[in-house]
Amino acid sequence: MLYSKLFGKTKKTVNQQFESKNHELLTKGGFIDQVSSGIYSLLPLGKKVLSHIENVIRQEMEAIGGQEISMPLLQPKINWQKTNRWSTVDILFKTKSQYGQEYVIAPTHEEIVTPLAKKYIESYRDLPLYLYHITPKFRDEPRPKSGILRGKEFGMKDLYSFHADKKDFEIFYQKVIEAYLKIFNRVGLKEIKITEASGGSFSKKLSHEFNVITPAGEVDLFYCSFCSFAQNQEIATLKEGELCPRCRKGRMIKGKAIEVGNIFDLNTRFSDSFDLFCVDNQGEKKPVYMGCYGIGTTRLLGAIVEVYHDDKGIIWPENIAPYQVHLLGLDQQDKIVNQNCQKVYQQLIKKKIAVLFDDRQEISAGQKFSDADLIGIPHRLVVSKRTGEKIEYKRRDQKESKLLTLEEIIKLCHQG
Amino acid sequence: MLYSKLFGKTKKTVNQQFESKNHELLTKGGFIDQVSSGIYSLLPLGKKVLSHIENVIRQEMEAIGGQEISMPLLQPKINWQKTNRWSTVDILFKTKSQYGQEYVIAPTHEEIVTPLAKKYIESYRDLPLYLYHITPKFRDEPRPKSGILRGKEFGMKDLYSFHADKKDFEIFYQKVIEAYLKIFNRVGLKEIKITEASGGSFSKKLSHEFNVITPAGEVDLFYCSFCSFAQNQEIATLKEGELCPRCRKGRMIKGKAIEVGNIFDLNTRFSDSFDLFCVDNQGEKKPVYMGCYGIGTTRLLGAIVEVYHDDKGIIWPENIAPYQVHLLGLDQQDKIVNQNCQKVYQQLIKKKIAVLFDDRQEISAGQKFSDADLIGIPHRLVVSKRTGEKIEYKRRDQKESKLLTLEEIIKLCHQG
Repeated sequence: MLYSKLFGKTKKTVNQQFESKNHELLTKGGFIDQVSSGIYSLLPLGKKVLSHIENVIRQEMEAIGGQEISMPLLQPKINWQKTNRWSTVDILFKTKSQYGQEYVIAPTHEEIVTPLAKKYIESYRDLPLYLYHITPKFRDEPRPKSGILRGKEFGMKDLYSFHADKKDFEIFYQKVIEAYLKIFNRVGLKEIKITEASGGSFSKKLSHEFNVITPAGEVDLFYCSFCSFAQNQEIATLKEGELCPRCRKGRMIKGKAIEVGNIFDLNTRFSDSFDLFCVDNQGEKKPVYMGCYGIGTTRLLGAIVEVYHDDKGIIWPENIAPYQVHLLGLDQQDKIVNQNCQKVYQQLIKKKIAVLFDDRQEISAGQKFSDADLIGIPHRLVVSKRTGEKIEYKRRDQKESKLLTLEEIIKLCHQG
Repeated sequence: MLYSKLFGKTKKTVNQQFESKNHELLTKGGFIDQVSSGIYSLLPLGKKVLSHIENVIRQEMEAIGGQEISMPLLQPKINWQKTNRWSTVDILFKTKSQYGQEYVIAPTHEEIVTPLAKKYIESYRDLPLYLYHITPKFRDEPRPKSGILRGKEFGMKDLYSFHADKKDFEIFYQKVIEAYLKIFNRVGLKEIKITEASGGSFSKKLSHEFNVITPAGEVDLFYCSFCSFAQNQEIATLKEGELCPRCRKGRMIKGKAIEVGNIFDLNTRFSDSFDLFCVDNQGEKKPVYMGCYGIGTTRLLGAIVEVYHDDKGIIWPENIAPYQVHLLGLDQQDKIVNQNCQKVYQQLIKKKIAVLFDDRQEISAGQKFSDADLIGIPHRLVVSKRTGEKIEYKRRDQKESKLLTLEEIIKLCHQG
């Protein structure tokens, strides 16, 4: 992609109050645009990063047997009355047709997925079943804040599981924990803390939150310095400095975190509302056991920026970067340099390396360097008079640059 | 994919009134599920077809310079007041936050894309600009009907173009017509009629509809038997049997059609509302010229089923079929047959051919054949006692089957 043609150029100054670092860097870098409080557009760079995150999630969902579907965002009132949530949930956006029907604008999909599953589940042989989708969700938040970390409209992957009994649910629940750790690891978040969300071992229902430690976080956690164990401050039974009860190696630390995923034991809460039963292998009718598992996709994008940035801009993890390579052409008024730039650009495309080529002629070298730092693509290449036959190569997360051949660079990019 | 595990098995009888053939076949085949009037879920098979349609659209949008973004579905009231459409458009779903803000739930995105573009457009050098996205849209339809052809919630690709002058717009408008014909051709709709939508040559503004001729259509057209020329009945100046004024080869025929795309000259209608100007090469401030271009993605899915089916079920065009190959295993209680099935299944996967394997043991051969016809995957393979070392091969759109080797079949699949 030619940067001269890309929609959403960097902005040095924006006439706007920023709610957080992700808000500032994603806006200045040309990834997002705020439409109003808690509502954003994704520009081409932001859309690309989100697609990469979604694809990682999709692959790991498919790997544990998840099947992708697409459920509607307009949800009939009757479905929400059946679960007794029409009047009791306070973050619902609702809408009414001029012809009388009323709807909830989807904050979640238990009210749709349960009656859907019911149409296809009769016996235990139809189970287990794992359905997921990735769609916008809506919440009437009193104070949307922290950029795209908490919006009125946001992207979310929600997975719902259906089981013949509790034991089968518990086995799958552990599988989802493993899948989630893989997802967060692949998008660059290596250190995830898993928090027992409510009541811990005293509660009959399982529920866990996946947290990223960052000073920008909105949750207070006590977490282990060594393993993934953590406790929410509100229900914490441990103090700072105590030995971790899980691994017995680390010590408990207090810190802020962003919640990027959560998983719930739904038990038969929704199966009961919609009379979702299955016949077991003894011929007996049993309520279906359900779980639900969420990852906020746009929130994850924001969280990654909170973790991966410096004072110059974003530092995208390799797997989800909008492009792999940022090629800067300097001295392009020089015919030979210009030809070299074009050659490098075309060769990279040919090798299937996603490259953003800053081909702008009227822009200074200094501006191009600072734009590259702000945008945060992992591999930066410079072709100029000075570089001659070689190319200056620098990783966004390192200080030193070096002169390499195109072949050496292609090898580096393929290694990640 | 193993059919035994697939969510959304075929249903012979459904306790439901069907609005149209696409509604019936997509429901019975396990592609869609109706949530309420005009509102549907897509099951895994339907989601796959839609993704394939979306990918074709994406490729052709990128080919003409379109950049993919993602704009919100909650759109602030103020934006719709600026265009004077808050009170004048009658199909709007609206919602109100408990904290006071009011929103339109997106039926289209001029109200978002125009102020977004304004933030990045200053001079003619920033133009032309082509932005598109593929998102759900919402319309408060009085009588949703025809299955997924006309819903309250539906999928749509909308592209918006921005130009320094009218001439530049007109050139791009023609490019979009070509891109649309490629898209419809690639998803299997070879015969598209292009209708001048309003006033034809007497109108100053360009607008065209893309129509698929089918008895299930909701539009009355006069169209040329030879070329793509057509006129909407309401504004038709030609009669049945007359010579086509465009190609002078075909004769005008009267028939029903489904509208699958439309494109509009927006002139400066929305630029004016949002004060979107650009400075031209003389230093003068000029309003930006806009166009918009829609394709209903879920509607396209329904239209394809209306065109491609017989009395047994759907006949998917190769490019968008949920899977390329439907493998039926018969006599699987026979160990050797079962091994053969598994071998063929694994080999196809290895060759990157998307295969749905009907591995169900308890289901009769007759049922498997009729399910395959209903689902409509292009290439059907049968492995049974009778087929021995070979495989029975049949195209969904042909009557004759033949015995082939796996290598011959793989070759056929790669040819499409």
